[in-house]
Amino acid sequence: MCRVITISRQFGSGGRSIGKAVAEKLGWKFYDREIVEKTAAESGFSPKFIEESGEYAGATNSLLFNLSVAGAAMGNGRMSLYDEIYVTQKKIIEQLAEDGNCVIVGRCADYILRNRSDVLNVFIYSDTKSRAERITRLYGTTDKSAESRLAEKDKKRRVYYKNYTDRSWGDFNNYHISLNSGFIGIDKCADIIEELARM
Amino acid sequence: MCRVITISRQFGSGGRSIGKAVAEKLGWKFYDREIVEKTAAESGFSPKFIEESGEYAGATNSLLFNLSVAGAAMGNGRMSLYDEIYVTQKKIIEQLAEDGNCVIVGRCADYILRNRSDVLNVFIYSDTKSRAERITRLYGTTDKSAESRLAEKDKKRRVYYKNYTDRSWGDFNNYHISLNSGFIGIDKCADIIEELARM
Repeated sequence: MCRVITISRQFGSGGRSIGKAVAEKLGWKFYDREIVEKTAAESGFSPKFIEESGEYAGATNSLLFNLSVAGAAMGNGRMSLYDEIYVTQKKIIEQLAEDGNCVIVGRCADYILRNRSDVLNVFIYSDTKSRAERITRLYGTTDKSAESRLAEKDKKRRVYYKNYTDRSWGDFNNYHISLNSGFIGIDKCADIIEELARM
Repeated sequence: MCRVITISRQFGSGGRSIGKAVAEKLGWKFYDREIVEKTAAESGFSPKFIEESGEYAGATNSLLFNLSVAGAAMGNGRMSLYDEIYVTQKKIIEQLAEDGNCVIVGRCADYILRNRSDVLNVFIYSDTKSRAERITRLYGTTDKSAESRLAEKDKKRRVYYKNYTDRSWGDFNNYHISLNSGFIGIDKCADIIEELARM
């Protein structure tokens, strides 16, 4: 039986809203930003630094950067701060899954929980046009175009995911279902996921 | 409104059965093998040769082969036999979509119909274990292992698709929904697709 749902999502696809709606329908807990708070409490880092840690893996491709920040362990045998945050988050996600009845957004949760048999892994995506409209409506405009904000954020997610899982973000093999929210609609996506969780 | 469903599928995922079930639920026509018969009638080639033409794009990577067979047009300005078959099949698929109320399996139909707004594109896949069990149950054993038969057939589909569409087979961007039939079940996959088609 399904006790945990992970939602991976393109920026602006509405994956977070879908996850929240599913959690409400099922009467389950919803974890997105809450994981940052928990990680902050456990690690002592600030929530801001933790949120940003998910962005750094994609910030540069320099070898020096990869050696010092993005790799699994540093040369001196100590983990980088970013890896420490990842490991703390991983333990929190494992505990949330153990407690069950929850929806977890992002943070490689599909990979972290890959050996559990009670997890439904979902990927939410959409066409660029509808995502651009959504982020402009929700977050307003900036000096960058909506399209380049989408590309940048997706790249960061892709690189962060690749770095910690050695898998390709968005690859169908990682998920039980992938839904185009622009075509299907946010509400219908939530209905389908709820149905699968109740199976 | 949705008037056409295309099903792309991994070998052994049950995609064909799912498509057939959806067509029955909706009272729509179902086209898989039927497209081969139509192409044979229109082109004069034998059904066997047409079925095999979908396999050849992956048969070799030699430049000579690619020049003579798998490219878009031959050096002398004439199409290869394989391209002729593709073009005939493409026209048949376009006509079927125009007539509407049908489910079409394979044959790059998602790509061929990409400019229509009344098409629901579905990708069906599953884990290797359940696919191996399925093809052994349905088609028996051969001197090759089930796993290598899966890998070979999927490679042919991937190369054929890439050759005629310049897209990656299985890439979520090509589909509105991707379903793991081993996890979700054949019947439930059919239910979900039916629901989406009726939206």
